[in-house]
Amino acid sequence: MRYNVAVIPGDGIGPEVIEESLLVLKKIGEIYNHEFNFQEVLAGGIAIDKTGEPLPKETIELCKSSDAVLLGAVGGPKWDGLSGEKRPEKALLGLRSALGLYANIRPAVLHRALKEASPLRSDIVGEGIDICVVRELIGGIYFGERGRSVKGKMGEAAYDTEAYSVGEVERIAKTAFQIARKRSKKVTNIDKANVLESSRLWRSVVEKVAKDYPDVVLEHMYVDNAAMQLIRNPQQFDVIVTTNMFGDILSDEASMITGSIGMLPSASLGEGSMGMYEPIHGSAPDIAGRNMANPIATILSSAMMLRLSLNLEEEAKTIEDAVTRVLEKDYRTSDIMNSGMKPVGTKEMGKLIVTEL
Amino acid sequence: MRYNVAVIPGDGIGPEVIEESLLVLKKIGEIYNHEFNFQEVLAGGIAIDKTGEPLPKETIELCKSSDAVLLGAVGGPKWDGLSGEKRPEKALLGLRSALGLYANIRPAVLHRALKEASPLRSDIVGEGIDICVVRELIGGIYFGERGRSVKGKMGEAAYDTEAYSVGEVERIAKTAFQIARKRSKKVTNIDKANVLESSRLWRSVVEKVAKDYPDVVLEHMYVDNAAMQLIRNPQQFDVIVTTNMFGDILSDEASMITGSIGMLPSASLGEGSMGMYEPIHGSAPDIAGRNMANPIATILSSAMMLRLSLNLEEEAKTIEDAVTRVLEKDYRTSDIMNSGMKPVGTKEMGKLIVTEL
Ligand SMILES: CC(C)[C@H](C(=O)O)[C@@H](O)C(=O)O
Ligand SMILES: CC(C)[C@H](C(=O)O)[C@@H](O)C(=O)O
Repeated sequence: MRYNVAVIPGDGIGPEVIEESLLVLKKIGEIYNHEFNFQEVLAGGIAIDKTGEPLPKETIELCKSSDAVLLGAVGGPKWDGLSGEKRPEKALLGLRSALGLYANIRPAVLHRALKEASPLRSDIVGEGIDICVVRELIGGIYFGERGRSVKGKMGEAAYDTEAYSVGEVERIAKTAFQIARKRSKKVTNIDKANVLESSRLWRSVVEKVAKDYPDVVLEHMYVDNAAMQLIRNPQQFDVIVTTNMFGDILSDEASMITGSIGMLPSASLGEGSMGMYEPIHGSAPDIAGRNMANPIATILSSAMMLRLSLNLEEEAKTIEDAVTRVLEKDYRTSDIMNSGMKPVGTKEMGKLIVTEL
Repeated sequence: MRYNVAVIPGDGIGPEVIEESLLVLKKIGEIYNHEFNFQEVLAGGIAIDKTGEPLPKETIELCKSSDAVLLGAVGGPKWDGLSGEKRPEKALLGLRSALGLYANIRPAVLHRALKEASPLRSDIVGEGIDICVVRELIGGIYFGERGRSVKGKMGEAAYDTEAYSVGEVERIAKTAFQIARKRSKKVTNIDKANVLESSRLWRSVVEKVAKDYPDVVLEHMYVDNAAMQLIRNPQQFDVIVTTNMFGDILSDEASMITGSIGMLPSASLGEGSMGMYEPIHGSAPDIAGRNMANPIATILSSAMMLRLSLNLEEEAKTIEDAVTRVLEKDYRTSDIMNSGMKPVGTKEMGKLIVTEL
């Protein structure tokens, strides 16, 4: 088979981690006899530098006509001074919205080989952490009406609107329940229904959708409590479903308790099979170009891409198993280094994984 | 001197922890020759049961005419089914707003005697945790316009508005910088300025206020990153200033990393000296009436009240030192129990502290 994959290396360590992922995918292509047609496109800071815009039209067009999008990372201090519409982040937000990617799937998994990496006490980590955060990605306060008004409560004011409609909540809730069915069959809905009207609508729709999944347990939790429970007892969570804004905060918190941000992939999905795949870490400009970045998060993102957008389950598993074996052989990039382990750089880690495939 | 203190025992464990705090305050009154005039008023679930409303007018009036308000806890599953305006939480939100309490001060401190209580690894906890979260309390999405509309993006919709005006940000920023001056002279402003217009206004006002405090270092951090950094390296924080919604989430997260929710007090302040003081923990209905609750958070809240509203620094210190000594003598309520320690109930803990005064 021939697959069209749009590739966005982006900024900072983006190009480096993408390079290793493409080597892994090429090897998978050889082994399983697939042809991947990688087409590199510009987005983020590099796109601003080269075209004046964070998300050129051609990038959107090419992504739309591809089977999947693989993204490294965008942004960096170089472009921090720019205003709203001109920032590198706009590339991410614009792509999510243009491609209709309403479901952001972020597994927060603590690899058995990396148990000591968690900042939590070992008795809390227990047998490990395995949470899947399902974050709504193209609604809520990220995309609501915003602006300024000269006469606010106390002088000039600025506002943003958190809004959710029934259909938007329905589809993300379905995604969460479907994922939970393939896991431990528990969904924790996180909102602020004791204060926000949008949360009350959100919660009632989640409850309605839950009726179609009687085999899945549904719990509700307020966002402030969730921020505590993730630290106190992460074991209680299986699938978390939440809004764009709360998901931004809680998925990062969930990632951090695994202690291995450089390991975690993500998928952003819409109605069809097309999706965008990226590591959850940022562009890390401080270590860019120094062969120091951990390419595993991006390599695992490409495995998610094979599974979810290209329907290549066996190939995805092959990549994930190779990563596990390399970790079990004690190879570590500096972000997950620990005494007694063997330090390697970005390129070596990529090569080791390719060899294990 | 004679001080008028409005007392709101509230629901669940509220009345129990308030009782011990009043005993402590009475003893302080005897020692230092002050007269505390405690006036109990209704708010929360108990007010709903007795008057049909979570926040009766008389409660607001009495609080307004007092020197300070001491509150136990409100809410519980019994009243969870009620709709927006009729919920116990409305008492809290209504009081904050009616009394103009725009600054919520939440110290997240890990007591030396309770180091093992933190869910974080001991190498991360290091010499302890000492963060002061300054949360804006009567603005933002908590009090913005909200409602429903029949025709949203995909069916019926609900919305809430996050809005901040210059004056609202100025006053909370000043509070944060003033507190930082008395501590380690560092303020971390937390927002989502890469996405939200209200955050961009917020950040620019904080930067303007910072100019009047050249001796205090100001840093900015996005809320998602902050949720991670609190776990990865809590030592980096001194004073955190943030919005109502982000502060709700982050102050709870900051409390949890100390592992001693039952120990942490809070103050809510406005323009004058009047303030409302309450433990950060909830009403814990599951352990209510069982002499199990930890009264320390409320006792330390009353110490904050003496210091901040009644200007009784020495008296406040006397209470705090008494708490420290009782902990150093290894007395523990069940929430902070550890092997080798001496288990005590709510009443015993209160008595021990009174004796140490
Ligand atoms: C860069 C930023 C706009 C983005 C977000 O807030 O969604 C990022 O934090 C993420 O979670 O992918
Ligand atoms: C009970 C609730 C409305 C309240 C809030 O969100 O402010 C509580 O969580 C708090 O932090 O005091």
